[in-house]
Amino acid sequence: MNFSIIFYIIGWILKIEAGLMLLPCAAAVVYRERSGICFLITMAVCLAIGFPLTIKSPKKKVFYAREGFVTVALSWFIMSIMGAMPFVISRSIPHFIDALFETVSGFTTTGASILTDVEVLPHCMLLWRSFTHWIGGMGVLVFILAIVPLTGGYHMNLMKAESPGPSVSRLVPKVQATAKILYMIYIGMTVVQMVLLFITGMPLFDTICISFGTAGTGGFGVLNASCGSYTTLQQIIITVFMILFGVNFNVYYLFLLKKIKQGLLVEEIRYYFGIIAVAVIAITINTASLFGNVFHAFQQVAFQVGSIITTTGYSTTDFNTWPVFSKTILVMLMFVGACAGSTGGGIKVSRFVIMVKGVYKELMLYLHPNAVRKIKMDGKVVQHEVTRATNIFMIVYIIVFAFSVLLISIDNFSFTTNFTAIAATLNNIGPGLEAVGPTQNFAAFSGFSKIIMTFDMLAGRLELFPLLILFFPNTWKKF
Amino acid sequence: MNFSIIFYIIGWILKIEAGLMLLPCAAAVVYRERSGICFLITMAVCLAIGFPLTIKSPKKKVFYAREGFVTVALSWFIMSIMGAMPFVISRSIPHFIDALFETVSGFTTTGASILTDVEVLPHCMLLWRSFTHWIGGMGVLVFILAIVPLTGGYHMNLMKAESPGPSVSRLVPKVQATAKILYMIYIGMTVVQMVLLFITGMPLFDTICISFGTAGTGGFGVLNASCGSYTTLQQIIITVFMILFGVNFNVYYLFLLKKIKQGLLVEEIRYYFGIIAVAVIAITINTASLFGNVFHAFQQVAFQVGSIITTTGYSTTDFNTWPVFSKTILVMLMFVGACAGSTGGGIKVSRFVIMVKGVYKELMLYLHPNAVRKIKMDGKVVQHEVTRATNIFMIVYIIVFAFSVLLISIDNFSFTTNFTAIAATLNNIGPGLEAVGPTQNFAAFSGFSKIIMTFDMLAGRLELFPLLILFFPNTWKKF
Repeated sequence: MNFSIIFYIIGWILKIEAGLMLLPCAAAVVYRERSGICFLITMAVCLAIGFPLTIKSPKKKVFYAREGFVTVALSWFIMSIMGAMPFVISRSIPHFIDALFETVSGFTTTGASILTDVEVLPHCMLLWRSFTHWIGGMGVLVFILAIVPLTGGYHMNLMKAESPGPSVSRLVPKVQATAKILYMIYIGMTVVQMVLLFITGMPLFDTICISFGTAGTGGFGVLNASCGSYTTLQQIIITVFMILFGVNFNVYYLFLLKKIKQGLLVEEIRYYFGIIAVAVIAITINTASLFGNVFHAFQQVAFQVGSIITTTGYSTTDFNTWPVFSKTILVMLMFVGACAGSTGGGIKVSRFVIMVKGVYKELMLYLHPNAVRKIKMDGKVVQHEVTRATNIFMIVYIIVFAFSVLLISIDNFSFTTNFTAIAATLNNIGPGLEAVGPTQNFAAFSGFSKIIMTFDMLAGRLELFPLLILFFPNTWKKF
Repeated sequence: MNFSIIFYIIGWILKIEAGLMLLPCAAAVVYRERSGICFLITMAVCLAIGFPLTIKSPKKKVFYAREGFVTVALSWFIMSIMGAMPFVISRSIPHFIDALFETVSGFTTTGASILTDVEVLPHCMLLWRSFTHWIGGMGVLVFILAIVPLTGGYHMNLMKAESPGPSVSRLVPKVQATAKILYMIYIGMTVVQMVLLFITGMPLFDTICISFGTAGTGGFGVLNASCGSYTTLQQIIITVFMILFGVNFNVYYLFLLKKIKQGLLVEEIRYYFGIIAVAVIAITINTASLFGNVFHAFQQVAFQVGSIITTTGYSTTDFNTWPVFSKTILVMLMFVGACAGSTGGGIKVSRFVIMVKGVYKELMLYLHPNAVRKIKMDGKVVQHEVTRATNIFMIVYIIVFAFSVLLISIDNFSFTTNFTAIAATLNNIGPGLEAVGPTQNFAAFSGFSKIIMTFDMLAGRLELFPLLILFFPNTWKKF
């Protein structure tokens, strides 16, 4: 294990996190909040650890997939611990486990909260909470790749470990340039959303926080009603942007290159919009009577569907009161998730496409045992390694999911609560059903269950393997 | 598609089913029940269709996996329709969909019932209900292979399609001899259980029905309290035999050959008993306070755990009232299921062993990218085809499961009810939780939901692919 590079990168993570905390500091100055001091303390700690670790760049350049996974997993863990400090020091969230849960929920863009009343929090804390979504959405390692002059061949192994989806494609040959393009698209779209929301009369503070949460597909709101008290127009803008941030960013890059048609023909995108359309129509029909008229139902349903499939987790209505058929569709969407290469979580549309094509291929093999068939996506053959990794991912996913549901069931909440609480955290969504429904929160769980769900949020965001590798004894054996 | 062989085999199925109905006829004579006439009518219909189909043996001998799947799926479907006739004609179960549900539940060894009061049924009907478990447990095609002088190379394709588990091993080189040995072990163990239950004072009728249900891992009882009113000793005997019938029958064959040690060392068996032991201990600790003393708790927990993991579905207590932790373990066991090559359902222990080993291999590949690793079971390399088929099986399983839960959710029962109802039918168990708990039944579901669950029971028993092939358009294309 090449610890010199791992520590070097973690050092950079801490320095960057300190830099990012300037934003809540500024908010504290604007709103004259004394709790801003907590960010200064945390920044000092981050820099005190970060600087010594980055004094000299590491000499040993050996950096395999293993190192990539371990670096990413440790980075996210340390970043979350430091990110939780301001909450604990300011006593906004006095218990460390709660603060860690909230911060991991932020960075992993889950949006599950242990706060029963978010409106009592100081502005700087609310801004930091929403900002963590934005930071975690595209990934900190990707950010580091974009700005820090790292040399050596380990860019791809870091990018692979942090980026969601069954396979990572570089937009341009250089990983560093790819990371820069991704961040530029990300910043651009976030700013557009902020402007649009501001024009429609949303308070500036809400504008910033809600856009951060949408861009990262996070879901922390700044009001107890989540997005329920915003105007219909504002809700529609949020709906559109949630769905846009769930799109594979490669498509936007194709658009930038003016390859509009090629972008629209990406298979994953068509399935993604197809699933959204079917879900919205089915739920609108099922719930129309609850909303009085079809148009209002459609607008509300589109918001919740967009929020759930992109794993954002905002809500404008309590879908826990919907008919079970509609709720079951939402639960299914929780698992589907957004596109690979987006800021959204879940299993990802492309994984499902690969799996369904694999099943089709298997059925055809039964009919024509000697035929040679390949799974194709966007006209290209899907490599055997990708299908195998997808299958293995699903198995690990099921195992982690099942044991998480079992472990938190010790708290004796209902089976539906436990099932959807894990679905909501492992898929980085936020709300579930029953005791973790959109009007509820995660405060009532025991510390033990919160630790399990904190693990699941990280496992979900990093797509299982980096965290699994960390707890795999052989990783630490010398060889 | 070679329809001549398919119809020929279906003809035999009908003739054999007519023969099997002699047993309930005999019961009708003994108990002087007029409804016995319904069996005679059904037998006449079976023979009237069966004889013309089997007059001349088919000339075209081409018989691939495709034909095997279609034959097995159609056979089970037709067998179930004919098996439901006596219930409908006698008006014991007046509605055809209900009767079909009950019969498929019988043949697939599920044991889920739509009857609210089984004790009002005539003895001949109760006996037929339990006998369907016994027939379906080992499989009718396997039975045909054992007794009908079929020639040609299609034995293995039939056996593969009907026998549960990721791979089918022949005990002896000849498929026909293998089928005979399996049935001899099956009959022998059933008789031993009957004798033991009879010695302990159980009424002869109950003895026969309960043993049929145990051997096939079915679960239909003859009393409304399932097995709750039997003595502790009788419950212990049932517990032991449920668990024994969940063991891979290859092990018993090894025992017959006096290869005791080799039998005990089979990996799947060790995991199977390991899982049972862990589950019993965990639930006993969790529920001890409910039962007053640990020994009583242990006995009761062992019964329910044995019943659920082997997918039998008998119950002696209402586990729906247990703490959620215990219920979650039971739900997990529903999916694990029994051993491959047993009469039990579920995903099967060996599939999980293969999957977990696959994950281990993948993690090792991340650490040593160039190492060549093979998955082994019982010292033998697991073929690539078997692991791929296992992965594909899981994907199909998840898809069928998720859409089944969605479709029955239209009835607006709770999410937990729907989830466990599908778990209980797709895994051929019987009872689930909440509205389908051990003291409840499936009567309240709509006809549409009952059809979905009937499909799931068949899909579960035949391990998905035969039924999937039947509904796959390409199967019926000429090529």
